[in-house]
Amino acid sequence: MDALERGALADVVVLPGTTREVAEIVRVCGETRTPIVPRGGGTGFTGGAVPVRGGVVLSLERMHRILEIDEASLVAVVQPNVITGDLQDAVERVGLFYPPDPSSLRRSAIGGNVAECAGGPRAFKYGVTRHYVLGTEAVLPTGEVIRTGGRVVKNVVGYDLTQLLVGSEGTLAILTEITLRLIPKPPHAATLRATFSTIRHAVDAAARIIKARVVPASLELIDRDSLEAVAGHVGIRLAPAETGALLLIEVDGLAEQVAAEADRVESACRAAGAEELLRATTEVERQDLWRVRREISPSLLRIASRKINHDIVVPKGRIPELFDLVAALKVRFKMPIPAFGHVGDGNIHVNFMVDGADPDAVRRAQEAEGELFRGVVALDGAISGEHGIGFTKAKYLNLGVSDDTVALMKRVKYAFDPHGILNPGKIFPD
Amino acid sequence: MDALERGALADVVVLPGTTREVAEIVRVCGETRTPIVPRGGGTGFTGGAVPVRGGVVLSLERMHRILEIDEASLVAVVQPNVITGDLQDAVERVGLFYPPDPSSLRRSAIGGNVAECAGGPRAFKYGVTRHYVLGTEAVLPTGEVIRTGGRVVKNVVGYDLTQLLVGSEGTLAILTEITLRLIPKPPHAATLRATFSTIRHAVDAAARIIKARVVPASLELIDRDSLEAVAGHVGIRLAPAETGALLLIEVDGLAEQVAAEADRVESACRAAGAEELLRATTEVERQDLWRVRREISPSLLRIASRKINHDIVVPKGRIPELFDLVAALKVRFKMPIPAFGHVGDGNIHVNFMVDGADPDAVRRAQEAEGELFRGVVALDGAISGEHGIGFTKAKYLNLGVSDDTVALMKRVKYAFDPHGILNPGKIFPD
Repeated sequence: MDALERGALADVVVLPGTTREVAEIVRVCGETRTPIVPRGGGTGFTGGAVPVRGGVVLSLERMHRILEIDEASLVAVVQPNVITGDLQDAVERVGLFYPPDPSSLRRSAIGGNVAECAGGPRAFKYGVTRHYVLGTEAVLPTGEVIRTGGRVVKNVVGYDLTQLLVGSEGTLAILTEITLRLIPKPPHAATLRATFSTIRHAVDAAARIIKARVVPASLELIDRDSLEAVAGHVGIRLAPAETGALLLIEVDGLAEQVAAEADRVESACRAAGAEELLRATTEVERQDLWRVRREISPSLLRIASRKINHDIVVPKGRIPELFDLVAALKVRFKMPIPAFGHVGDGNIHVNFMVDGADPDAVRRAQEAEGELFRGVVALDGAISGEHGIGFTKAKYLNLGVSDDTVALMKRVKYAFDPHGILNPGKIFPD
Repeated sequence: MDALERGALADVVVLPGTTREVAEIVRVCGETRTPIVPRGGGTGFTGGAVPVRGGVVLSLERMHRILEIDEASLVAVVQPNVITGDLQDAVERVGLFYPPDPSSLRRSAIGGNVAECAGGPRAFKYGVTRHYVLGTEAVLPTGEVIRTGGRVVKNVVGYDLTQLLVGSEGTLAILTEITLRLIPKPPHAATLRATFSTIRHAVDAAARIIKARVVPASLELIDRDSLEAVAGHVGIRLAPAETGALLLIEVDGLAEQVAAEADRVESACRAAGAEELLRATTEVERQDLWRVRREISPSLLRIASRKINHDIVVPKGRIPELFDLVAALKVRFKMPIPAFGHVGDGNIHVNFMVDGADPDAVRRAQEAEGELFRGVVALDGAISGEHGIGFTKAKYLNLGVSDDTVALMKRVKYAFDPHGILNPGKIFPD
């Protein structure tokens, strides 16, 4: 059972404390052809850590130490079960920064972040988890312990196995140590909040911000349905009643840069027809503006008992068409579909809200899911930008990936895991 | 023959104009088990495009078009033989930016940049080629045409074959189309030049710049031997005579940001004991400060007829130890070894200067090469940060990569190229 709220039972749970113990467990599983499923924080949305074929769940919870923060080389070395937010706190205490910020960061572990290539609001400026992973120690499904990459930011020695492991959803190797790139912590930040009458106006503002040569750390879009849900949940409106779309924009850097960028962001938003425009520079004010974003998840569960959260992604220029598609799905499938997300990346969280006890509603959500995914692929997008495929989206893999490409991915899987013991039932359709 | 100045003869050269023609050629080569070597600009330093096993050289020179610049989605789609500098010019005309800047950018093609994962001075702030490749169209050695990734910046649908192809040195697939991420062009830049008595002082300045929370676009270090070579070549000293190390620092962004960052860079350099400190903000002044860097390559060839250029990389904190190693090699092997490079990345170009006609000198350079590489690996570094392994460094692959990891890389190669026809003789030792 994990964040997905759909579970499966392991036959055995093991809690190794060292790489050597991991390797020994993997060897035994290899000899007996027993499925083995690595598990960290258990916060995945697509079931990556769920043992759908039974077998051994290999929990990494005892491997939770930050091994080193090297300030001279801007590198951290961690065990897989370090909680991402704890790592951020530790490096920020010495003036450094690990930018990837999935909303689960207070609960999810860095190993899972790497396995899924977690994103977050800061990805537009700072990139996703992939861009911070320099090296790994990994146990192969065949039992060998390998090191990939290293402690350097440029490395072109052989194939980049590190980047192949990132996002491989625990199907190629078990990560036992991860070397991460750090950057200097931006000393200042400002948050701006702008409301618009329509999604198109908000997307136009985002485009104007980029035209003004500003790269915000975050550029978050929240739609009307999400705002209504928040208003219902917290009891007061956090944005004007007639708001059709809300942008939350954060800029960061040196104080002078933050001031200059915030001015440009304001001008861009006004030029795009912003209705209400707020700017916050103190930490307290900033957290106040971010509140509407943080309240979305708890609020949505008041609309319906079950939230089916899709993290689709489209090219930025096609976001308005994506919202047209969502609007059509709402009408056709008769359900609320609040949507919000990272407009700078085109990565939008589309939430099908259904009564989990109503089989007809669940069936409609499943149909709508297929329609959404086909529409996203038609917009040159991808069915997952952050959560991965796991087992919940495996049947849709071939929507955007050709048979030849899936066959090649399977040959890559075979190169790592000839007996198919590592995290079976994930990514690939049966 | 290419930039390496060591050639081999192809049996046939083909110049396909379309992906379909590439696929047909590959199919014929597959049936006849003929080696096939993709070739773009021919500017590689490790012989990636040299047909060491003969066979077919597949030149991509006719596939040189920029197919699309999508300003709304910040994406460019190009054929492989677009010259990197031409792409930069084209996107900058619409206010966008493709940052990777290998010094060959006026001659090298984007396909080769992707195959080698080219870097450049701007990598510290902006990353290397890998960080800008979103998707590819590629012809597999087995003849299938696949698409990897897409037009979106976040994509976690299956294994990231795109990132596996980047840096694979043309051994896994032939790229026929590449989709690149663009960012807004920073409107302003300033260049600073600081001289120091020793390498350690210069590296200390770089560390202080980072402590001041500034991320320069470029942070270039030039050693005394390189400066002496430039002075000899251009006839005047471009830096004071007693300079032990020179830093070239470029900051970019909005005008306010550039001014604030340049101030902090100056303070950091002064605190580290800078002797001469210059700041340029106009394009003409900036180019003048960069002149010393640009003159290095032509100048070195005045010292000796042959330059053996190594692009090793060490963790930033270990750069002083690297220069200690270089100093020891100079004495031991009795040859000039000017060194310069990207101090922000720890990626330093170490140049063994020898008389190409003197077999004893060449032998000493080969011995020194082995010593350098072993020393770099002992410093937790890598033997190549930018140029790849090709055939010239293949025998050193296992210095920093274990046998188990090499074996895994070979299984990955097999997953793509079961008959071993694509660019044989590269990366892996015989």
